[in-house]
Amino acid sequence: MIQPHYQLVIVGGGPAGLTAGLYAARGRLKTLLIEKGATGGQVLITDWVDNYPGFTEGVSGFDLMDKMTAHADRFGLEKKFAVIASLDLQGKIKRITLENGEVITAQSVIICTGARPKRLNIPGEHEFSGRGVSYCATCDGPFYRDQEIAVVGGGDTAIQEALHLTRFAAKVSIIHRRDELRATKIVQEKAFCNRKIEFVWNTQVQSIYGGQEGVNSLLLRSNAGEERVLLAGGIFIFIGIQPNSDILPLDTLKTDSSGFLITDEEMATSLPGVFAAGDIRSKCFRQIINAAGEGAVAALSAERYLEQDIPLTPITCHEE
Amino acid sequence: MIQPHYQLVIVGGGPAGLTAGLYAARGRLKTLLIEKGATGGQVLITDWVDNYPGFTEGVSGFDLMDKMTAHADRFGLEKKFAVIASLDLQGKIKRITLENGEVITAQSVIICTGARPKRLNIPGEHEFSGRGVSYCATCDGPFYRDQEIAVVGGGDTAIQEALHLTRFAAKVSIIHRRDELRATKIVQEKAFCNRKIEFVWNTQVQSIYGGQEGVNSLLLRSNAGEERVLLAGGIFIFIGIQPNSDILPLDTLKTDSSGFLITDEEMATSLPGVFAAGDIRSKCFRQIINAAGEGAVAALSAERYLEQDIPLTPITCHEE
Repeated sequence: MIQPHYQLVIVGGGPAGLTAGLYAARGRLKTLLIEKGATGGQVLITDWVDNYPGFTEGVSGFDLMDKMTAHADRFGLEKKFAVIASLDLQGKIKRITLENGEVITAQSVIICTGARPKRLNIPGEHEFSGRGVSYCATCDGPFYRDQEIAVVGGGDTAIQEALHLTRFAAKVSIIHRRDELRATKIVQEKAFCNRKIEFVWNTQVQSIYGGQEGVNSLLLRSNAGEERVLLAGGIFIFIGIQPNSDILPLDTLKTDSSGFLITDEEMATSLPGVFAAGDIRSKCFRQIINAAGEGAVAALSAERYLEQDIPLTPITCHEE
Repeated sequence: MIQPHYQLVIVGGGPAGLTAGLYAARGRLKTLLIEKGATGGQVLITDWVDNYPGFTEGVSGFDLMDKMTAHADRFGLEKKFAVIASLDLQGKIKRITLENGEVITAQSVIICTGARPKRLNIPGEHEFSGRGVSYCATCDGPFYRDQEIAVVGGGDTAIQEALHLTRFAAKVSIIHRRDELRATKIVQEKAFCNRKIEFVWNTQVQSIYGGQEGVNSLLLRSNAGEERVLLAGGIFIFIGIQPNSDILPLDTLKTDSSGFLITDEEMATSLPGVFAAGDIRSKCFRQIINAAGEGAVAALSAERYLEQDIPLTPITCHEE
């Protein structure tokens, strides 16, 4: 049998992947983290993180991910920036094929590919994407200075991002299909008190209209069936997430009905030697702090799995 | 029905309790955290925390807990320092009785009482506790400058603390009942390379001897049955943990065979409205980062539980 390249490959470099990498590198596993873009995942496009315990005054998403990356780097985590074409995870040796044809082999894999925003799938959404349709307030907010814009959704992300957008826009209409919000109370309270925010309840967006210069208005339809046009220079959509599972072999991995990976409490998936952590997992609550906690558990589980048939890494003495 | 004092009471103020408190306070739940000593739990007596993601260069246990406490305080978490006499968790209204007779009522409870070191239960252990027998290297290490001391155990804590003790002691004998360590490889490697550390394999401590001035020697017995005396001015015992469950109503809460609380993935215990997070839970891996992640999940689960029959906290507008 050919010796695999790595004991552990971590797929994805968000909070879960970076914490798994920190623990695996510190545990002296021969580990590679593969990330297609920049390490940090969705947090990179999060303006401000106020609830990662220990960062008392809050921290920007970018800074937090920079620190987590540097932390794993300090323990020597090897990283590769590449797009994965396919994963073959069924055998004892896992095969990761990159888009450039390179094949990387490993004894175990932790999947931390995360999730991405859901689309409304309405006319104009794709056409005006990047020209008035956005899924990231931090990225695109500054383009809408003194304009009237809309936000779709009623959860934490929608309301937090609407609040963020009031720094730029003249007015933010929050369009929500129900008559109450799912967001945390303190976030709701802030939104209800913000004079730039207006709520459009029991309503859905039917179409996004625009021209050469981008989005200019939205066709709304109330649950009672009334239609009207809302003038808006931009629309920010925050209606939930879906799993980043395009590269995953879903014929061999157990998922829930939405396509998120099912694991046990030790983060083991349905395939031996394959673990998952973070937003790609089937679970109720997706926060940075529990993604990180799961990354640590996944790495410790992988280490325990590897110890079952792998000799100890030879111990060499360094001068401190 | 009398209105309970709180929507949520959190029992215990370590990383799990403080994170639950941060999330609950931020979520505008009327919350009280009860802690018998100082907030921080076991981490307070941890010299250096090198694997809490985001603290790139590591952080002292004391500083990390100080930051987590200040973080929850920033969102207005109410705290009470008191000893709990008993918990009645079966009804819809949970009753927390303090040692001074005060009764606090709540709609939901999160148990974060943590765990504590296991004892060897050998002659001399109790007698010399605090006079040569210790369970905390950070607390007691400096008393053993230039002395020969012993450490019992083979896990991460044992080896990390033995390394810490080499800052003070002339020699540290690690006494372990097996012929290999359970500790993380990088920690093992450091210990094997440290000239002050000597390993005594396949051996257990039978008795702790001493006099007026405290511990002076240990009676060792090898697995083969050979006995010998080891001169030692101190013995540090790191052989695992047991749940802090003295105040818990274990007749009504489901536990594993070691007494740790069994929960589902959303941290719900076997009683409605009662959640648990951190080291008190039945699980494989006990790290600060996953204790914190569980605290967040427990608070979000409690919030969801409360929303089922509790009106929203009245929303009042503040000036920012």
